[in-house]
Amino acid sequence: MNSLSIRQACRSIRALNCPITASIGRRYASGTARFDWEDPLATANLYTEDELAIQDTARQYCQERLAPRVLEAYRNEDYDKKIIQEMGELGLLGATIEGYGCAGVSTVASGLITKEVERVDSGYRSGMSVQSSLIMTGINEFGTKEQKERYLPDLAKGKKLGCFGLTEPNHGSDPGSMETVAKPHPTKKGYFSISGSKTWITNSPISDYFLVWAKLKTTGKIKGFIVERDQCPPGTFETPAIKNKTALRASITGMIQMDSCPVPEANMFPDVEGLSGPFTCLNSARLGIAFGTMGALEDCIARARSYALERKQFKGNPLAKYQLVQKKLADAATDAAYGTLAAIQVARLKDEGKSVPEMISMIKRQNCDRALVNSRTLQEIFGGNAASDEYHIGRHVANLFVTQTYEGQSDIHSLIIGRALTGVQAFV
Amino acid sequence: MNSLSIRQACRSIRALNCPITASIGRRYASGTARFDWEDPLATANLYTEDELAIQDTARQYCQERLAPRVLEAYRNEDYDKKIIQEMGELGLLGATIEGYGCAGVSTVASGLITKEVERVDSGYRSGMSVQSSLIMTGINEFGTKEQKERYLPDLAKGKKLGCFGLTEPNHGSDPGSMETVAKPHPTKKGYFSISGSKTWITNSPISDYFLVWAKLKTTGKIKGFIVERDQCPPGTFETPAIKNKTALRASITGMIQMDSCPVPEANMFPDVEGLSGPFTCLNSARLGIAFGTMGALEDCIARARSYALERKQFKGNPLAKYQLVQKKLADAATDAAYGTLAAIQVARLKDEGKSVPEMISMIKRQNCDRALVNSRTLQEIFGGNAASDEYHIGRHVANLFVTQTYEGQSDIHSLIIGRALTGVQAFV
Amino acid sequence: MNSLSIRQACRSIRALNCPITASIGRRYASGTARFDWEDPLATANLYTEDELAIQDTARQYCQERLAPRVLEAYRNEDYDKKIIQEMGELGLLGATIEGYGCAGVSTVASGLITKEVERVDSGYRSGMSVQSSLIMTGINEFGTKEQKERYLPDLAKGKKLGCFGLTEPNHGSDPGSMETVAKPHPTKKGYFSISGSKTWITNSPISDYFLVWAKLKTTGKIKGFIVERDQCPPGTFETPAIKNKTALRASITGMIQMDSCPVPEANMFPDVEGLSGPFTCLNSARLGIAFGTMGALEDCIARARSYALERKQFKGNPLAKYQLVQKKLADAATDAAYGTLAAIQVARLKDEGKSVPEMISMIKRQNCDRALVNSRTLQEIFGGNAASDEYHIGRHVANLFVTQTYEGQSDIHSLIIGRALTGVQAFV
Amino acid sequence: MNSLSIRQACRSIRALNCPITASIGRRYASGTARFDWEDPLATANLYTEDELAIQDTARQYCQERLAPRVLEAYRNEDYDKKIIQEMGELGLLGATIEGYGCAGVSTVASGLITKEVERVDSGYRSGMSVQSSLIMTGINEFGTKEQKERYLPDLAKGKKLGCFGLTEPNHGSDPGSMETVAKPHPTKKGYFSISGSKTWITNSPISDYFLVWAKLKTTGKIKGFIVERDQCPPGTFETPAIKNKTALRASITGMIQMDSCPVPEANMFPDVEGLSGPFTCLNSARLGIAFGTMGALEDCIARARSYALERKQFKGNPLAKYQLVQKKLADAATDAAYGTLAAIQVARLKDEGKSVPEMISMIKRQNCDRALVNSRTLQEIFGGNAASDEYHIGRHVANLFVTQTYEGQSDIHSLIIGRALTGVQAFV
Repeated sequence: MNSLSIRQACRSIRALNCPITASIGRRYASGTARFDWEDPLATANLYTEDELAIQDTARQYCQERLAPRVLEAYRNEDYDKKIIQEMGELGLLGATIEGYGCAGVSTVASGLITKEVERVDSGYRSGMSVQSSLIMTGINEFGTKEQKERYLPDLAKGKKLGCFGLTEPNHGSDPGSMETVAKPHPTKKGYFSISGSKTWITNSPISDYFLVWAKLKTTGKIKGFIVERDQCPPGTFETPAIKNKTALRASITGMIQMDSCPVPEANMFPDVEGLSGPFTCLNSARLGIAFGTMGALEDCIARARSYALERKQFKGNPLAKYQLVQKKLADAATDAAYGTLAAIQVARLKDEGKSVPEMISMIKRQNCDRALVNSRTLQEIFGGNAASDEYHIGRHVANLFVTQTYEGQSDIHSLIIGRALTGVQAFV
Repeated sequence: MNSLSIRQACRSIRALNCPITASIGRRYASGTARFDWEDPLATANLYTEDELAIQDTARQYCQERLAPRVLEAYRNEDYDKKIIQEMGELGLLGATIEGYGCAGVSTVASGLITKEVERVDSGYRSGMSVQSSLIMTGINEFGTKEQKERYLPDLAKGKKLGCFGLTEPNHGSDPGSMETVAKPHPTKKGYFSISGSKTWITNSPISDYFLVWAKLKTTGKIKGFIVERDQCPPGTFETPAIKNKTALRASITGMIQMDSCPVPEANMFPDVEGLSGPFTCLNSARLGIAFGTMGALEDCIARARSYALERKQFKGNPLAKYQLVQKKLADAATDAAYGTLAAIQVARLKDEGKSVPEMISMIKRQNCDRALVNSRTLQEIFGGNAASDEYHIGRHVANLFVTQTYEGQSDIHSLIIGRALTGVQAFV
Repeated sequence: MNSLSIRQACRSIRALNCPITASIGRRYASGTARFDWEDPLATANLYTEDELAIQDTARQYCQERLAPRVLEAYRNEDYDKKIIQEMGELGLLGATIEGYGCAGVSTVASGLITKEVERVDSGYRSGMSVQSSLIMTGINEFGTKEQKERYLPDLAKGKKLGCFGLTEPNHGSDPGSMETVAKPHPTKKGYFSISGSKTWITNSPISDYFLVWAKLKTTGKIKGFIVERDQCPPGTFETPAIKNKTALRASITGMIQMDSCPVPEANMFPDVEGLSGPFTCLNSARLGIAFGTMGALEDCIARARSYALERKQFKGNPLAKYQLVQKKLADAATDAAYGTLAAIQVARLKDEGKSVPEMISMIKRQNCDRALVNSRTLQEIFGGNAASDEYHIGRHVANLFVTQTYEGQSDIHSLIIGRALTGVQAFV
Repeated sequence: MNSLSIRQACRSIRALNCPITASIGRRYASGTARFDWEDPLATANLYTEDELAIQDTARQYCQERLAPRVLEAYRNEDYDKKIIQEMGELGLLGATIEGYGCAGVSTVASGLITKEVERVDSGYRSGMSVQSSLIMTGINEFGTKEQKERYLPDLAKGKKLGCFGLTEPNHGSDPGSMETVAKPHPTKKGYFSISGSKTWITNSPISDYFLVWAKLKTTGKIKGFIVERDQCPPGTFETPAIKNKTALRASITGMIQMDSCPVPEANMFPDVEGLSGPFTCLNSARLGIAFGTMGALEDCIARARSYALERKQFKGNPLAKYQLVQKKLADAATDAAYGTLAAIQVARLKDEGKSVPEMISMIKRQNCDRALVNSRTLQEIFGGNAASDEYHIGRHVANLFVTQTYEGQSDIHSLIIGRALTGVQAFV
């Protein structure tokens, strides 16, 4: 990305009228060394002014607009579809894409947006990731010019909602064994007929567009198809919601069930074949998760720190006075800082064309693992009050378990990294 | 406890018509060595025949009657008050107490009951613990003959529900600083007037009897009072529920708010003073928790093992084939076996008059910690499906965090143990 | 084991003139409950009087005779061969064997001996384990009457030293692939000719008798052979020492190199075949290790506790006053108590004929792992002084790593347990 | 630091005739993305060409000249004094200092030198750190012009050896309580008389110059003094070696015992007072440790990886094929990459004047902790062979424990970080 496009992107974001961006560039102006508990290793020193502005814009939106909704949304498993629209209006969706109404910002800037959203809730971030990293990245990377022009602008604006259908009920960690199949439609010329089931699909019950991966019967190879809900005849396409989730309840999740669903041939990605297509999308999303989970962890730290300073036990000492509490905070703050540095490094490498998927496996795995472990440890500081959802820590803990699990369960990434380190595969 | 009373207790339990008790004593009859994945270190070898019978009875009830209710109860934060009645009818309440309609069984037998209930849900076990260990033990240990006769039989039968008011909003880990106060009632002769707030009180919204600890204004010493809801004038006694909990949702929790509530002098425990009263009750409950959490962990193991055997990934191998999965199972099974052995040891010591509270701190802390850690690790085996409440593992994980926190947060027990080991206190 | 033989064994041990045995049975006589930092869960309550007496005898010997030697022995990698003689004179060798001059005590009693020796040093325990569990158990279980009578009495008395040759340089965790081979001797009638190499053999450089496992060429099956050093012609049998070890330096280790070494046919175990022979011996040794490592851990606790009470930092507070230090002590003490309970349980099951090898895998793995982890954590209490060998903690830490590794590396035991739990093997 | 001085420094290093520097700048020239198991997150992308050249020079020296010496040195606790001379000739000592014959390179470059030395041995790195970070930094920061000119050039060249006397036998973590005292010499005009003991002083037995911190009797404030061994009258200054260390045996350690030792007034640092003086030096050293331990960890990874690829068990599979082994490697490689990124970040901040001591506490603590934990886990891969010192892993494990302990024990840094995060101190 050249610096010109960054400037353009920021201009467009500034044009959105977020007053906070007026303060850009002033934060570290003095150059005086200081310890900032919210950023102990001064990662902000690595951001451009524009990236800092984008972060501020995103944070303001998230704290002012998302944070107040999350408690009720999580209690009731209720996702407000307008959120994607709002994000679209702010330019937060598909932010690294050039053109098609997207902001064209750096991968770091995009990661910072992700981090701010997940600071509020991993479910909200999931909803955004699906739109930005999974379907928009997929179309942008593999779509034809026509496909891009047809789908990206509305997805970027949040006028249309999209989702990503890869995982199947029986093949969570092993998508190569998928059973969903596409074959020439027996009656509708110029159409494929797709049948199969996808599960744990974020936003599926409310999406308009679906990037569905299926095996082409004629070749046995996996191909990507853009399915439009409106065009599917009744009975061929269902997206039942999965309710009563134990986590990510502020995000809506469902299945995609296709039964001889007709999909125009023009809706297939022409060139990409096999798992490299979905994995490109997943890598984009995973890099976002590596940033995002650090946002959730930072929120846990901030909440635990406040609680520890306010709550007094034994002779009026704040909990923050106790060594066992300080160690929990020190561990968490260290992991948040380290994880953020690693995410920045890989994002910069990506923009320089020097990243590889195994790097993303490494930071996705580690940042999810550490966010989870530390959020759990911080939860202990709240004592019995952790059981009240109004302290928010229990929600993060539950959510972060899922982030560790989806888009490559932690152990799977261990084996991907292990294979990269040794040249030997140990999946089977 | 002499063997006669055990026999009587067992007769009464057998009389309840649980057909499974017919199989007592046959299980290890052959003496042939074998490895039982449900009991890898053959802890059953340490139980008497009667204890095994009681375990069977409890397990049958829990699996047949409690397990089917838990999913909906947890979803809706809905505790079925009849459960205590059913338990009472089976003789499961206050089971170690002699007389007053109680079973008078060994502490190990009581622990096995607890374990079976918590195998279903820690919330159900909490509901029972409050009745058995907190209020009934309190009355049995410290009550007058009249108090015992008035309250114990109905509590034992589950006709009346009781709870235990110690924790206050601002003094979770430090009950000695409680603010609830009792003073001679200004107008009602022979009555105390009690004012103050208790929080995180299991069963408070639905209880009939309340064992409330308050500081006697005249002496500054903590005393115990049995409060009957029916006798409290309007406006002096409220028990609002705490909703939207992040865990233990199959148990009902609330506050106790007393505002100049009149309580008869006869309802005060006459002799016990200071924290030794409530701590005696808590020690009884904590010992139960040490058993109970092992039941929850065993359920996690059983569910994870089944899932790992049934779920196939990568060339049709069951998850159980993978080394990383086997290690999780091996770790959990080891901790479950070790924790059960330790609980048995302390229970036996208790019946021999050789236990001390620090032993209970040790096993409460360790068993809760290990149950929690292992349940979380086992949860990983379920991958994305862990987010579905129908796999039950997420519920155990959430519950077990609370068990680690209540009745002495893990760190507090670390410091209790540390003090016992070194003679030096490090609370402040 | 009947109580008669225990009594006999104890009489013989008492006859050794250990005055401390006079105090037997008095220790817990009062029945008063107390917390003993050296035995927080009162495991002593589970021992018979005779077992307590044996423990006292062993402890006295170890503390008075072994402890003073260990520092120099470890520095110089120098094992005093007389130690085995001294142990033999005390009746500590092959203590569970009935007859042949052995004490015939319970497996728990034998475990307590092991624990006392390892309290001083894991290397000293290794030297004893090889004699007791590996070669003596092997001969007692599988030897002919003649073999037993020829070898056991001298081994029991410590007049002869024995060792156990199973592990080969290329097959540490997979002895089934051994390359050592025995075939009919081409020239000496009635003799086998054995060739092959064994490595990491405790005591091999100084042993008189060698229990060597080799594949019988004619059948391809593993068989056991007793090799007497004195009978091996020059050039056919070498036992070079392995020096410069990073741990277990108070124990001597070496190789066994056999080049067409003639061994009488009468020295082969007649019936046992395959890995069940060596695994029987290893199981006996592993059970001893489960006890022994708890002794080493208890020594680490005692040393760390003393240091923490004596060492003052920051305003004259002893280290024991700091929460982070107390937590380390509490964790270690808990694991030591739990591990001891589990070892007792399996030892009792063994004497009742109810133990299986997977139980031993479980306690060997867990107790070694926990001893290692906790010794390392306790080492932190010593700060810089841990680098001085006079504080002994560094020696335990280094030793305990090896105990985790030998006789089944921890991961191998995880897979053994995993297989037992699931019925699926994951070694390959 | 301006780019000119970097260029000069590199020219001088290149002039040393290290052929490997010819390859500078070519390594990532192609820009092609790839996964490098030795640098999984491409930290090299963050170095300047000159920094890469310095790293190569240092690596070549360390691998060619230090690595062959370390086994014998460690076995015999024998430090070769010529090493400091060799390092001086290469320009590795005090490398960040401008002038006085020092290279004046960036803090990152200096960190890379440290990393290469510790890749061989933490003891070798300790010897260098004492010279570079402790005494040279001290003199450069706080010395008068005369002191700098008198001492720095010879220290930079390695012609003279220096050490740093802060820690006392009774005040390891709390130097503010030091007992060493300096007072006007009763008989020698213009001299102080210093008395007191320092312990665990790297290089003290062989040093020429000693930077000793003592309390000035007249003010009670801590001041720094440069003591020259040659000028101390017999009986006033002794530096006995501490032998039989359990780690860092390739480094020599000792005490400094001063008994009314006369030290010229001109040898006192004029302006610095209190702990800020020694802490400035320690911060420099700690930053070096944060880099260095990553070198040691990388060496453990490389050795474990090689072993895992070469060692075959169970059906001829390399250990690298096993999931449990791959996870250990993945964990270690992740922590090495993360730790290196964090060290680079703080080093860059330092050169920009934006670092604070708490940042250094954070990376010193974390990198030491993770290096230690992972080296221990990797050690398990070696099985029994880990006990042979020729595999080197045991040496790293032992050394890394000390790095976690010295220059601020891990728990102390936790409390420093905790204080920075919360504003509340919990040391006492």
